Amino acid sequence: MEDFWRAHQVPVSSCRENDEHRQILQHWMQSYQPEDLFDENGQLKAELRALAPNGDKRMGASPWANGGRLRRELITPALQPYAVEVTSPGESQAESTAALGAYLAGIFRENADNFRLFGPDETASNRLSKVFDVTSRTWQAAQKPWDEQLAPDGRVMEILSEHQCQGWLEGYLLTGRHGLFNCYEAFIHIVDSMFNQHAKWLKVSRKLPWRAPISSLNYLLSSHVWRQDHNGYSHQDPGFIDHVANKKADIVRIYLPPDANTLLCVADHCLKTWDRINVIVAGKQPEPQWLTLDGAAKHCADGMGIWYWAGTVEEGETPDVVMACAGDVPTMETLAAVDLLREFLPALRIQVVNVVDLMALQTSDQHPHGLSEEAFDALFTADKPVVFAFHGYPSLIHRLTYLRNNHRNFHVRGFMEEGTTTTPFDMTVLNELDRFHLAQEAILRVPSLQGKADEILDLLQEKIAAHHRYVREYGEDLPEVQNWKWPSQQGSDAAPE
Amino acid sequence: MEDFWRAHQVPVSSCRENDEHRQILQHWMQSYQPEDLFDENGQLKAELRALAPNGDKRMGASPWANGGRLRRELITPALQPYAVEVTSPGESQAESTAALGAYLAGIFRENADNFRLFGPDETASNRLSKVFDVTSRTWQAAQKPWDEQLAPDGRVMEILSEHQCQGWLEGYLLTGRHGLFNCYEAFIHIVDSMFNQHAKWLKVSRKLPWRAPISSLNYLLSSHVWRQDHNGYSHQDPGFIDHVANKKADIVRIYLPPDANTLLCVADHCLKTWDRINVIVAGKQPEPQWLTLDGAAKHCADGMGIWYWAGTVEEGETPDVVMACAGDVPTMETLAAVDLLREFLPALRIQVVNVVDLMALQTSDQHPHGLSEEAFDALFTADKPVVFAFHGYPSLIHRLTYLRNNHRNFHVRGFMEEGTTTTPFDMTVLNELDRFHLAQEAILRVPSLQGKADEILDLLQEKIAAHHRYVREYGEDLPEVQNWKWPSQQGSDAAPE
Repeated sequence: MEDFWRAHQVPVSSCRENDEHRQILQHWMQSYQPEDLFDENGQLKAELRALAPNGDKRMGASPWANGGRLRRELITPALQPYAVEVTSPGESQAESTAALGAYLAGIFRENADNFRLFGPDETASNRLSKVFDVTSRTWQAAQKPWDEQLAPDGRVMEILSEHQCQGWLEGYLLTGRHGLFNCYEAFIHIVDSMFNQHAKWLKVSRKLPWRAPISSLNYLLSSHVWRQDHNGYSHQDPGFIDHVANKKADIVRIYLPPDANTLLCVADHCLKTWDRINVIVAGKQPEPQWLTLDGAAKHCADGMGIWYWAGTVEEGETPDVVMACAGDVPTMETLAAVDLLREFLPALRIQVVNVVDLMALQTSDQHPHGLSEEAFDALFTADKPVVFAFHGYPSLIHRLTYLRNNHRNFHVRGFMEEGTTTTPFDMTVLNELDRFHLAQEAILRVPSLQGKADEILDLLQEKIAAHHRYVREYGEDLPEVQNWKWPSQQGSDAAPE
Repeated sequence: MEDFWRAHQVPVSSCRENDEHRQILQHWMQSYQPEDLFDENGQLKAELRALAPNGDKRMGASPWANGGRLRRELITPALQPYAVEVTSPGESQAESTAALGAYLAGIFRENADNFRLFGPDETASNRLSKVFDVTSRTWQAAQKPWDEQLAPDGRVMEILSEHQCQGWLEGYLLTGRHGLFNCYEAFIHIVDSMFNQHAKWLKVSRKLPWRAPISSLNYLLSSHVWRQDHNGYSHQDPGFIDHVANKKADIVRIYLPPDANTLLCVADHCLKTWDRINVIVAGKQPEPQWLTLDGAAKHCADGMGIWYWAGTVEEGETPDVVMACAGDVPTMETLAAVDLLREFLPALRIQVVNVVDLMALQTSDQHPHGLSEEAFDALFTADKPVVFAFHGYPSLIHRLTYLRNNHRNFHVRGFMEEGTTTTPFDMTVLNELDRFHLAQEAILRVPSLQGKADEILDLLQEKIAAHHRYVREYGEDLPEVQNWKWPSQQGSDAAPE
């Protein structure tokens, strides 16, 4: 067959029915001289069998092909030194991935030969440059005098090929080590097919008792759809999490931490897991910080929760509307919408729900993280309108919640494939995910407000028009948008979660 | 900046506030010697302006960069000579893509310099080899005596790189020509990111009045998830259509023709369109043929329809259950399930709906092909159970139909990420998409049958168990499954649509 195109086909196809074919097969097989290889009982001859190595030296038993056997637990530092201080929700701003970068530097310090960071983009551009206090980029070639943070033993693997990063990390995990792949959100689609195969491999290998667990494949998607201020539409695609959600529930996890401390908690958790694929989507731009480290730890453990300090209901009260959010930019826009609603409609009972762990939206028989029916209804009610501001395509929320009691009242805003090179806030307006549209949506969905808040709706519409005029004239967002902060007095009556 | 890593950053960032930065910028800009380039009014000097070419010779005006200007309509042959004869639904079997291959040969005959077929797989393995009656594979290198269908001027572009195929086809379309990319369904995910960028390009370029339309990017996904008998789990992934469905409705179309004549009609339509991305999923294995060419043409034009000949209701009657299907294997399993139900429960009123054009499931404000509310309810009823057998992941059907009146009664079976190297029917059983599970689901969902058909449920369960034992003993499907045919007398009272 060698050198013949039929080598990629079934070369002799009808041996059962066709004598001539069977003879071809027999002739071929006999060319291996089985009489020299096997004894009269059809057993491989003892002297040949003795050529094979023993124990771990056998190809199929090498621990390097069963990396879980070589795996040492990652040593993770305490989170407190890396936490962002939050005295009151929204009071301070921080770059969430910068806090993560400092934590990753701590990981590098504790795990000198056991952890690597992979990425096609500039580690510094994703605000992870604190890692360079401890290690450098792997670099074997010549260096120029002005080059920085390159070293032959560097442990940051930076190369502009998502394929290469994914392949390196898979190999690193499969041989028993730990790692994190950070990537622009839009371009992680480049490895969709490689992700598929790793997910399939995990599903099948988990059933093999001899195969020891390997560390999880962890993705950090930063530089996400909502903050491509200079890059524009080509860099705007939040669909990787849709792709991931198709895979077996046991394998995949998707996290959308709204701020730095939740990102730290989520990353710390993911890095300790095994035999999974964890996707974390988090922003790198300065953004409001909502939760203290303790509040973040509880919120992430629960997967989602009510932010009583942001809403206008007490525990046990029934709201008129649920304002839900998942993702850092949608969380900020939701809280800004709630701020507007509190100002214009002080009597409106609002419940704010933030979702970190997307899989918890599913029912508990769909996903092991799925919330019980009772817990879900406590968050989203059984019959009140839910305005859900989502990081990705709205359909993913519908797909995860369609079995829930209150699904018919879910009104989801997210990326509608409207994008360009524009200001951060204009991106949300183009996709109707901004505070003004969210506030309008809430008013339009609450039955008791029908026909009674038209002036407010008009005022919000005028805000949208004013924004439109302003960004086209000045090339940046309205000062009231740029400088918006969650009013501290609103949060002061309740300690941040 | 040259040869310096800061070249990929903003090199001088604070010119507005910082005098030193502004001087650096000024020094840099002056190095281009603007006084030699511009006159005292700041205009480019006339002798320099004269260097630029005129008209179509200008880089931005070259018709080769605006391929729609060069585009000639594809000449498509009449379909009748390529149609599969269907005297009665399900009576005959055919390889659907083989019929398409003959039609594509006709296209090659009529469009000698204007059409190419691209694929990473063997064109022959995808049953398109009739094209080799007219053209060959492009091949510039040396040939061996036993090589076949290779030629320097061949118009079949076969290379085992999905990226290369996609890039070639995009370039071919962008310069005004026509083409089709055929690929294994699972591996088209390799070009997810390239698909994204082409979809984004189409969305934006459609708004530019000077840009002439180009031919659509057409995908034929054959060798699909349900027939990977030898390849197994690594080759089983129907998720590309989920990825496609995220893009702007104006741009994307997804077709699941259930047999050869519907495939011909769909392909003929897609090849005539422009500025779109069409995805066709169709099997290459011998499968039952349901519709005549005329019936297929009407069915494809409608997007979906009731197959009265298969169900037990007349037009205008209300069914007890809707058995819906999309995709060739789900269609066969649905009809086999209906055959069982007709035998066991002759009084059950069954309406069979087949969906070819997936986007027609959406509401008409979500997608231009979306069926009106009335038309949708006529097919799926307002309140009866719908058992929907789907080619892909079930969540896609929920996502497309969640706004429909009867969505709460949709029970979708599809790929649940359960796969291995096994028989074709066992694949459907593993994912509970087989005739026995579908018949059980129908019985369990019809209120009037509750508690009255337990013996039939048990009998179907015993069928599943018998299948399980048989495939593990014989390595092939039960004879009653392999030899199943739609009973001709059932179809005889109504002409095939």
